Formats: sequence, structure tokens, C-alpha cells
Amino acid sequence: MPFPYKKMTQEDFDAVRRMTDPSRVWVGEEIAAEYYHDEMPEYGSFPPELYVEVINKEEVSAIMAYAWKENIPVVCRGAGTGLAGGATCKYGGIMLSVMRMNHIFPIDHKNQTITAEPGALLIDIQAAAAAEGMFYPPDPGEKTASIGGNVITNAGGMKAVRYGLTRDFVRCIEAVMPDGSIMNFSSNVVKNTTGYDIKDLVIGSEGTLCILTQVTLKLLPAPTCSCTLVLPFKSLEECADMVPKVLELPFVPTAIEFLERELIDIVERNLNKMFPVRQGEAVLIVMYDASSRQELDSAVEAAAEAALKNGALDCFLADTPERSGTVWAVRGGILEGMKADSVSQEECDVVVPRARIAEYVKAAKRIAVSHGIRVEPCGHCGDGNIHTEMLRGPEMSDEEWKSATHACLKELYALSKELGGQLSGEHGIGNGRLEFLEEFVGPRMIELYKAIKLAFDEKLILNPGKVIEFQKETAGIGGMK
Amino acid sequence: MPFPYKKMTQEDFDAVRRMTDPSRVWVGEEIAAEYYHDEMPEYGSFPPELYVEVINKEEVSAIMAYAWKENIPVVCRGAGTGLAGGATCKYGGIMLSVMRMNHIFPIDHKNQTITAEPGALLIDIQAAAAAEGMFYPPDPGEKTASIGGNVITNAGGMKAVRYGLTRDFVRCIEAVMPDGSIMNFSSNVVKNTTGYDIKDLVIGSEGTLCILTQVTLKLLPAPTCSCTLVLPFKSLEECADMVPKVLELPFVPTAIEFLERELIDIVERNLNKMFPVRQGEAVLIVMYDASSRQELDSAVEAAAEAALKNGALDCFLADTPERSGTVWAVRGGILEGMKADSVSQEECDVVVPRARIAEYVKAAKRIAVSHGIRVEPCGHCGDGNIHTEMLRGPEMSDEEWKSATHACLKELYALSKELGGQLSGEHGIGNGRLEFLEEFVGPRMIELYKAIKLAFDEKLILNPGKVIEFQKETAGIGGMK
Repeated sequence: MPFPYKKMTQEDFDAVRRMTDPSRVWVGEEIAAEYYHDEMPEYGSFPPELYVEVINKEEVSAIMAYAWKENIPVVCRGAGTGLAGGATCKYGGIMLSVMRMNHIFPIDHKNQTITAEPGALLIDIQAAAAAEGMFYPPDPGEKTASIGGNVITNAGGMKAVRYGLTRDFVRCIEAVMPDGSIMNFSSNVVKNTTGYDIKDLVIGSEGTLCILTQVTLKLLPAPTCSCTLVLPFKSLEECADMVPKVLELPFVPTAIEFLERELIDIVERNLNKMFPVRQGEAVLIVMYDASSRQELDSAVEAAAEAALKNGALDCFLADTPERSGTVWAVRGGILEGMKADSVSQEECDVVVPRARIAEYVKAAKRIAVSHGIRVEPCGHCGDGNIHTEMLRGPEMSDEEWKSATHACLKELYALSKELGGQLSGEHGIGNGRLEFLEEFVGPRMIELYKAIKLAFDEKLILNPGKVIEFQKETAGIGGMK
Repeated sequence: MPFPYKKMTQEDFDAVRRMTDPSRVWVGEEIAAEYYHDEMPEYGSFPPELYVEVINKEEVSAIMAYAWKENIPVVCRGAGTGLAGGATCKYGGIMLSVMRMNHIFPIDHKNQTITAEPGALLIDIQAAAAAEGMFYPPDPGEKTASIGGNVITNAGGMKAVRYGLTRDFVRCIEAVMPDGSIMNFSSNVVKNTTGYDIKDLVIGSEGTLCILTQVTLKLLPAPTCSCTLVLPFKSLEECADMVPKVLELPFVPTAIEFLERELIDIVERNLNKMFPVRQGEAVLIVMYDASSRQELDSAVEAAAEAALKNGALDCFLADTPERSGTVWAVRGGILEGMKADSVSQEECDVVVPRARIAEYVKAAKRIAVSHGIRVEPCGHCGDGNIHTEMLRGPEMSDEEWKSATHACLKELYALSKELGGQLSGEHGIGNGRLEFLEEFVGPRMIELYKAIKLAFDEKLILNPGKVIEFQKETAGIGGMK
């Protein structure tokens, strides 16, 4: 344990019950095992000592102030759909669920924003916007994620090519600090140079700096039409090489994804979702949004022409909701399909400069093969964020799997760094990628991360052991070096 | 002095000369007085002890490492066009100019980015992009600003309504830390969840956290056509009330500015730049960019129709470069015109939610009048960022001017806060707005700002006394409270 946290006592349990309501507090064995981990149990299973479902910021504040005084670790939990082992009680203590704080306020049309509590689901935010002709673009694969989780991990997703990330849509944040203070980072304004930009530092901080209690998000007018192109190629290489060519066109695509045939087969076989295009070893999926049919047609025409000139075997237009639905259902089923098709998974979430995508994919395949691992790269090639999924077959022993994936990841991260990329494009560090971070960013950056963490959380009680880990012998107040 | 900084000696001067070149180092009286202040000498005039023009990051690193060891304050200087008294040697020490580090690298077409050293001028970046059919949208009034200055202050400008701020175009930053370490914050990737988002914290930090030595900026395909509408109204109120109506239209305008007749007169009279529209006490200027003529026409038509329905006296279309040039020349000449028309100026740079613009402008006028001050609100009403310019007439004594502006500013900031706004929308805190910050953001936020500052700069040697001020009696290492 990196810090002598207090082991919770009956008195602590009772105190939390008094601050909230006994009907919303569970302790020890009463806590459901699903809260021991997120979507990647591979990154650790950690029982909380106490699990509480809060209903407002005052409760969050009271619990944090108490935990701060008593030196009890606290981990905020949203929908638990993370893929980095982030929302888990690595050092025990309190798991604070915000899933009952799920109110969505009416859309503010004059400011073109929507405000919600952190436990509101992404899918409900999207629906609330759509119901009034507006559009919340961030679109990570997991629609049942909480909006708080999306913000605190800076969720990306398919539509980042055109619209950007969750970060780009966060106007302001209300949050509770580790000591219980309630803070507002920015307000519902378009620009702000008032002091340091804490808001953007908090976005993507994976619950290690503060706990979100409310977010206000920018909306856009909804595009009026969209079209998805499916472009089959005879090889992965030709498919990947097409990406920069699409990006050089004058129309900005909403999404560019790629799928290999093997991955399509996995989804079809395991989930019974059929992909509409049978040709090609690899397919590129390109989506365009537009505010007029004419604009859309110009974009689609230009992309189709460029693709056919560069080796596409065909150009399938998914220009109705039904047709595009079949395409995106397969893309959306990848993780589930791979889970059904393997004993367990490990994932590499690197992002590389767009210009280096083909190089990365080719080299990643070589690396995986050299370690005897079945690997399925897929994902957001429009932004260079290639989820390189490693699948464990039943023939591999625990030991073989562990050492092969570890060696493979080390090489993949080194490859990403060499290509000017980053360790994680959207899933974050959490607990799962922690061991690779220092080598990637270097010791001076780790020192800076630690100093930032201490600036918010001198006692290291908020989501400890995620993103950064303080050394056993030196951790604690002032022990950052 | 908030910290016992070392007074520089001959030995220190010689050391800096050895690290750089004697021909690029000036000391004491040799230093030109223009370096004592930025564009707002009202916010203080501070002679550096040494002024050096560096040519590469290694020199920056060597100087910082030396200053860190010797406890000498360092202030990085770009083009000196700031409006917050930010790039000045408030506590003496070294002024480090990066204006000779002005190289612009060739455009990276595959990644759609441009990389430059911090001393490159904004105007040269814009031109380099335009020469290859690309577009760098951020467009603050001051075109001779350095790109480093733009990034470190998160410059906004006219086109933020559609395209966003400088922040939205920064892919990655190379910087030197106060201790001399050279760091890279992110890389040329579209998304990144690798550790804390230091890049966004550094943007807008006004030179208090690190010194930029290189930036990589996102470019867009250049729009193919644009049009500016000038909409005269018979009153400021009607003009301001039009803003949310323009924003509710389905087309996102590139810029929305407003000008009062009095301000137009000031520019015409002092700079001999004639505005093409004579009607109206106040005019709204709305600009649209588009990638097709059809799209542009639809946008212009919708805006014109809405304006005429809501009281616009006319709709002047500046649809050629010459016509729009005359409009924007007057808008661009405001600061210069006001300087020529008054003894001195004070400025309030608040930003309010877009929905509250009219309310703010009306109340700001009332407040100014109550203090006997001539005030000219103008600026980026499309993003709620209203530069509320106060002009000093020759009849006011120093004392009268000082106390009236101070009292007026206090009320304007309180008004902004009440409306859900912020203290500064784009000019920053620097030295000029420092005294108003704590009341605005509250003591807990100031504590957090201080902790952030210390996380980067434990010795408080980088641009001390800007954005935050440490108390005399407690400042220094570990003395943040």
C-alpha cells in the first residue's frame, strides 16, 4: 500500500450512513462483485470496503470532507464501462457511485448547451438533444456509459474525426475536491482566460483529481443528412493507405473506421449481425454528415472516386438508416464479438499521427505474430487511434498469455513512440496501463504528473494508484520525489 | 518583493553571455524602454536587469537551469502585444525574448498541421497556410503577435464563434520548464489520454508555468467563399438583442461583432478609415465562411431575413474582398482609434453567456455612466466577450481616473459574475487584472492556482507576480498557503 490509509471501521460506516441514507450504503460482503472491476477485470478485481450511492453534491462533499479527515481512499464510479481498470478501489475504502445523480436539465437553446448530472447516460443526453433538433456529437462505442465517465476520461469515439472529443464539448464542470470543497471550473461561456484552465486538466484525469457533480455540454445544430460508404480492399495495407487520401479531400468526414474480414467474421459468427459487404480482406467505413443533400452528395462522390482510383474493389453506399445500421451494428459489436470469441483480451489503445497509420498497422501485425499472439487491430483510423486487440486462445496457459501480451505491449508502445504517437488515445491509463507509462513519458513527466496530483490531492485519497503510482517509501504529503 | 530573488551581478550577466552570445545580450540601461511594458503601459513599467534574444531551445534550457539554480526571475517575451501587462519583469531579472526563434516548418499535409517556433508571427503562420490552400483560423485583432504569445495566452479573436480559440488548434507543445528540463506536451496526434492533459493547462497560463519553444498547429481546408453582412440598428439594445437570433439560425457564423456609431466615428476621425454604412446608432457585423456558393447564399439569406424582421434598418452585403476590407478595417482599428482619441485607456474583457449579452451591455453602460466614465463596449458579441473600453478624457485628474475606473471595474466584474460570466474572455489576467481575480474566483480557487503554479515552478522564478501573487510573508518553496 503506497500510503497508510485508514482501514474503515464500524464508526466510519455509520458516519457515511448518517451523511447519506442507510438504504443507499452497502459494506463488505453486501457489495456486489460487479463493483470490484470495470469492463476489464483483467486489470484487477478490488472489493470496496463501503459502497454508497449518492444523490447530490452535498453528499459528495460531506463524504469527501470526512474521508479527507480520516484518510480513507475514495473512488468515484459511473456506469463502470471503462476499459482501463480506472473505477476500482485498488486500495479499498469507499466506492462512491453517482449513478443516481442522473438528472438532465432542459436544453438551453440560447446558449446551445445541455446540463446534466454525472450519472446521466450518454445515450440519454444524445436523445434529449436530438428530441429538440440538436446534436451531441461525441460517440464512443459504449452508449450506456455515464456522461461523467465520458468527461472524466475524455471519451473519444467514432465521430472524433470531424467533431472532436468529449473535451471539445465541455463548457463547464462542477466538482468536489478531495477535501470536500465544491468548485466550478469555468461557466457557460464560449471562451475564458480567467486564471489557469483547470477545466481541461480535470477532463481526462480519470477521477484522480476531483469528483464531477455536474457538467454543461455544448450542442450543435443536428446535421440534416448523412451517408456511410463501405470500401472493400483486397489487403489491409491498401485499406490503411487509403486513410490519408480520404483526409486530403476537401470534405471533412465524420468517421473513418476500418475492419478486417476476420473481425467481421467474428462478429457475424458470435453475434449473428451480418455485414452487408462480402468482398475484400479489409474494409474502410467512411461516414459523412452534412447540412444539405448537395453538400453530402459532393462529399460522397469525391470519396468514392478517390477510393476506386486507389484500389477499392467496390463502393457500397449505406445511404438509408437501415443500410447504415447494418454497417455500424457490426462495427459496434466488435468488443462483444471478440469477448465471445476468446478466453480473455488485452488491448493496446495507441494513437499515432494520421500520416503513420499504415506503418503502425503493418508493424503491429508483425510484432504480434512474433509473440505468437492473435491480434485484431481495428478502430478509429481517421484519428490514428488503432485499438490493437489481443485475443487469448484456449490453448494458451496463464503464464504464456501474460508474458506474451506484456512483451507485445512493450513493443507496440515503443513503436507508437517511435512513430510520434502516444500510449493511449482514448481509454486512458487507469490501472491497466500504469506499468507502461513511465517508460513512455519519461521520469521528468512523471514527476510533473505527481506534482499536479498533489496540487489537488495532497493526501492521495482520490482514486489512488490510477494514472500515477506513488512509491511506497516516499508517498504521502510532500513526498512527491 | 514576494520572494528574495537574487539581484543579478556582473557574474550572472557574463554567464548568460557565455550561454548565448554577447551580441544578443543587453543589460541595465542598454535595454530599450519598450521592453519595460506591453501594449498596456497602464499595467506597469518594469525594467529587466538583463534582456537576451535566444535562438534555440538549448539556450532557453541553459538560461532556465542557471536562473533556477541562482534564484533569478525570468520572463519570456514574444512580440509584446499583450493587453494584460503579462510579459514584463515585475520583479526584475531576465527578459528572454524568443522573437529570433521564428522558423516556420513546411506544412505537413498528411497530418494537416504546421509547426513553428514561438517567435513566428501569427500573420506569417496564416500566410504560410494560405499559400498551400490551408487555413489557420484563430484571428485575434493583433496580427503582429507572436504565435507563442497567442498559444500561451489562448488568444481568441473574431472567428472564435465558428472555429474556436487558439487552444482548439494546438496539437502539441515543446516547452522548457523552470528548472531547464525540455518537455513535449502531447505529439502530433488527434487525441490523447496518456496521463494528465498538461498541454491544455499550459495554454493560457501566460508564461507562468513554462516557456514554449515549439508549437504544432492544426490547419483546416480553406473555405472557398465568404461574405460579411453589416446590419445597422437604431439602438444598441436592438443590435445586441439580435445576436442570439443569429446564433439560433442553422448556419454557424464565422464572426459576430458589434460597433456603436460613436466608435465608428472615433475610428473614422482618427485613422481616416471610412465605414461603408452611415445608418444606425449601432451595427452588427456578421461574417459567414462556406465551402460552396450555395451554402454561403443560404446562410446570408437566412441572416438577412432574420435581421430585417428584427428591426435592422438595412442589410449591407460586403461580398467582395474590397467591400469586406472596408468593414473589417474599421473594426480592426478600434484600439488604435481609441488610443488616439483619449489620454489613456482601461479595459474590461469580461465574457458572459451568449444569452446574457444584451443584459450585460445595457447594464455596463449604466454602470459606466454612474461613475462618470466614457465607455465604449465593443467586440466579440458572438461569443459573449465584450471588450468594455473605458477612455480617459483630458479633463480627468490621475486620481479621478484611477478611482473611477477601479470602482467601475469592480462593478463590471460583479455584473459578469452575476450573469454567469468570467473575468477575462481572452486578454488574460497578467498584472493588470490580478487585484480583481481573488474576489472573482474565490479563495479556494486561488489556493488551487497556487498549488498548480508550485507544481511547475516551486521557486516561483517564471514570470512572477502574474496570474497569481504569492504573499510576501509566506511565499517560496512550500509556502503556498
